[in-house]
Amino acid sequence: MNKLAKDRPQPLTVKEIARLLNCPFEGEGNTEIVGFSSLEKAKKGELVFLSHRKYHHHLEKTKASAAIIPQDDKYDRIPVLKSENPHLTFIKAVELFYEPYLPSPEIHPTAQISPSAKIEKDVAIGAFSYIGEEVEIGAKTIIFPLVAIYPKVKIGQNTVIHSCVSIREGVRIGNDVIIHNGAVIGSDGFGYLRNKDDSQVKIPQTGTVLIEDKVEIGANTAIDRAALDVTIIRKGTKIDNLVQVAHSVEIGENSILTGQVGISGSSKVGKGVIMGGQAGIADHVKIGDKVMIAAQTGIMKDIPANSIVAGTPHMDIKDFMRIRASLTRIPELIKTVKKLKVRIEELEKKIKRE
Amino acid sequence: MNKLAKDRPQPLTVKEIARLLNCPFEGEGNTEIVGFSSLEKAKKGELVFLSHRKYHHHLEKTKASAAIIPQDDKYDRIPVLKSENPHLTFIKAVELFYEPYLPSPEIHPTAQISPSAKIEKDVAIGAFSYIGEEVEIGAKTIIFPLVAIYPKVKIGQNTVIHSCVSIREGVRIGNDVIIHNGAVIGSDGFGYLRNKDDSQVKIPQTGTVLIEDKVEIGANTAIDRAALDVTIIRKGTKIDNLVQVAHSVEIGENSILTGQVGISGSSKVGKGVIMGGQAGIADHVKIGDKVMIAAQTGIMKDIPANSIVAGTPHMDIKDFMRIRASLTRIPELIKTVKKLKVRIEELEKKIKRE
Amino acid sequence: MNKLAKDRPQPLTVKEIARLLNCPFEGEGNTEIVGFSSLEKAKKGELVFLSHRKYHHHLEKTKASAAIIPQDDKYDRIPVLKSENPHLTFIKAVELFYEPYLPSPEIHPTAQISPSAKIEKDVAIGAFSYIGEEVEIGAKTIIFPLVAIYPKVKIGQNTVIHSCVSIREGVRIGNDVIIHNGAVIGSDGFGYLRNKDDSQVKIPQTGTVLIEDKVEIGANTAIDRAALDVTIIRKGTKIDNLVQVAHSVEIGENSILTGQVGISGSSKVGKGVIMGGQAGIADHVKIGDKVMIAAQTGIMKDIPANSIVAGTPHMDIKDFMRIRASLTRIPELIKTVKKLKVRIEELEKKIKRE
Repeated sequence: MNKLAKDRPQPLTVKEIARLLNCPFEGEGNTEIVGFSSLEKAKKGELVFLSHRKYHHHLEKTKASAAIIPQDDKYDRIPVLKSENPHLTFIKAVELFYEPYLPSPEIHPTAQISPSAKIEKDVAIGAFSYIGEEVEIGAKTIIFPLVAIYPKVKIGQNTVIHSCVSIREGVRIGNDVIIHNGAVIGSDGFGYLRNKDDSQVKIPQTGTVLIEDKVEIGANTAIDRAALDVTIIRKGTKIDNLVQVAHSVEIGENSILTGQVGISGSSKVGKGVIMGGQAGIADHVKIGDKVMIAAQTGIMKDIPANSIVAGTPHMDIKDFMRIRASLTRIPELIKTVKKLKVRIEELEKKIKRE
Repeated sequence: MNKLAKDRPQPLTVKEIARLLNCPFEGEGNTEIVGFSSLEKAKKGELVFLSHRKYHHHLEKTKASAAIIPQDDKYDRIPVLKSENPHLTFIKAVELFYEPYLPSPEIHPTAQISPSAKIEKDVAIGAFSYIGEEVEIGAKTIIFPLVAIYPKVKIGQNTVIHSCVSIREGVRIGNDVIIHNGAVIGSDGFGYLRNKDDSQVKIPQTGTVLIEDKVEIGANTAIDRAALDVTIIRKGTKIDNLVQVAHSVEIGENSILTGQVGISGSSKVGKGVIMGGQAGIADHVKIGDKVMIAAQTGIMKDIPANSIVAGTPHMDIKDFMRIRASLTRIPELIKTVKKLKVRIEELEKKIKRE
Repeated sequence: MNKLAKDRPQPLTVKEIARLLNCPFEGEGNTEIVGFSSLEKAKKGELVFLSHRKYHHHLEKTKASAAIIPQDDKYDRIPVLKSENPHLTFIKAVELFYEPYLPSPEIHPTAQISPSAKIEKDVAIGAFSYIGEEVEIGAKTIIFPLVAIYPKVKIGQNTVIHSCVSIREGVRIGNDVIIHNGAVIGSDGFGYLRNKDDSQVKIPQTGTVLIEDKVEIGANTAIDRAALDVTIIRKGTKIDNLVQVAHSVEIGENSILTGQVGISGSSKVGKGVIMGGQAGIADHVKIGDKVMIAAQTGIMKDIPANSIVAGTPHMDIKDFMRIRASLTRIPELIKTVKKLKVRIEELEKKIKRE
């Protein structure tokens, strides 16, 4: 078993960390660091980071023994490491002390693996995992216990699949992908033809799903197979928990789908798109590159690249904020108009009389 | 293992397909068809369909070797099959070339089946599936690997239950039902009595769930058991992924619940109702037959049959669209009213002066 | 196997029930009761309850053989038990006839339990459950089949974990907790640093999750581990199905999170808070104690204690209802203002002319 967390046997000095991360330091280089934490919760011996000069005052209160600070900042109460991107440098520092838990590359004797499956070197397959016929699994990929991989699935290298995940027949998954617990990849798309008596004929979902390299998929997320061709999640896209991706959807590279987002059938989402939590996209909609979508937004029409939108149905975020601010004034507005009407009537009477 | 997709060993001619589907054709009947596709993605040898005459121009660009077109349309560049309902005919054509993956009707040696369970003929039970005491499973039903079926569950014939599904104690499931991966049927309803100190007493959830024939349930959907009687999903209703159905809910026949819909406790949904994605219904609400509910709608009151609604709280869709259009004009309206007020004041001054 | 439901071998008389529940009764004390039901669906031999005097008329139609009624009510057609809190007394009566299904405290021979795990007395571990290294499980805790418990997890006593649940490395779970099927506790938080080319660097999620005593977690709910410290669900809080709790969130004691609620990273929710279905909270937000949040509310800012809110973005529920009512009047308001403008113009012309 790998080390689980923060249980590095021996400390590193500030000087050593600075050398390993290739960044300058100031103050006592022999200060020993045994772990890492946030500014507020740090204890003696821990390393923290300051993301921006404007939070400088938080340094005063921290009990940390060293901090990574922005290049253009200064501090001398504790030793500091300086970085152009303190959060990124902190992530690298964390990796000196912490390694996420992963099982060793062994195949558990209880795992059921079809004789026709091709398993490359250094693969881990956990207890009670089921690997169907003609499945291919690349080197160093880790399948946790209780995973169901249906026939003809192809999985790349260095991919991690957590417990209770189901991967349906024929789905293709790239390298360096992480799929969290309970996710379902390749379930049938939701398509029916309605008869006149309201009964439905199931439209066969004959397509598949393609998950490209470096995608991460959250817990209990569901990604449906296409009716005819393929549902695609492009390289580097990150999907949070409980997200619904319907059949024949395509998500471009490096997009972010936050928790409980829903995307309906055949919609295309561009590259570098960011969707806030619980936002939804109707079917057959196109979202341009780098669009930002606020949480709970409802989208029924195409959105051009670089837009920022909110509301149901969506509008430009500036309009949304302006309208939202005006809403609270409507009840008063109605009263005002009523009063103005009375005043106009009076004016009209007077004019008439004269 | 059944054929997975589109891997029919030998092609069919247009003439043969026309005969098998019992529909007229025009053009070269000996043209060979090896598969099917969409109009845009079709390759040589593939069959496509045109849903309506208005899309006729798409036929020009397709590389397909034959098309199913509406009865009242004409085309002669490639052979065509004619149908009153081209999509329905296409579905039947797809079934000539494609069969969804299903395991053979065998019981895997690792499956744990209680000796008191009754398993009928030609049932498949996958690796590591657990079948509790006094469970009954009808003929030709398929249980994929890693399924948990608690005691006293009754499942009909020809039903398919995918991996990582949990079916809780005493739940009843009909014939020809499909339950996708990770779905949970019969978890405890969410009911508590609140004490004065805010602590809660759990209300025992003593009821069960009834899933009638021909229902389909999406991946990671959750359907709770009733507190006292039974949560019911009626015949032919289709439920998408990540849908929440609370305790004592009843959904009528042939309704459609799209992804991430949520229905609160004791609400009753009629027949032929269509709910768009992420729509929600509060508790103890009645939705009439054939109601259509837009995506993200929030419903807190009863809705009469045949209504079309949107918004939170819901309103008639026409009102919703009208109000939605008017919203963008509020900021200007506020300005206009302000200006009119000034003009009225001026008028009043003038009148007074005179 | 325990009794599943309502299958008590011998009936109790009204007199005996009154004695067991320590409450007064009126009418024929020897009436035999064999089960319980709701007022509408009750059959002969069943016990029902009336929550409030105002529903008194429902007693006339019930076929029940006895009823628990409010202290200040009267009825003589059937025997009645009187209680200050009829629903709470009914729950206690239900427990005389019904016991939820739980497996016997045995460890199934197929369960895979690490030799370094510590399992206390009277623990049940179901078929195909996987218990990782150094896991600790307290006495009388029940692990259903097909559960994945990663290394170093600590679980208290009398806790119930249903099938297809995943509990990730290092998570701590208290006593008397119930976790329903398919829930995921401790999946990675959703955190990335974005590079200039839009590719993302994963922020290591080194923290854990703490679930305190008497918490209940719904089916297919996901609770993420913290990036640096700990995601906390405090004592007595109840979480419904398909809820998303992001990294570093803290939920206070005795709160209620209804189905499909989503809470973004680092937000803090107070004690005794009630969130309606599909409501969402943005990141880094603080919700005071006893706040009530309507279904589908979207929260982006802190909320003081005891508030009641609705809308996206949220506002006080009274404002929300007032604005919601005014919305339908906007289209007419626009017309009215247009007409008033014309009348003002006419007045202005007349004044000028004179």
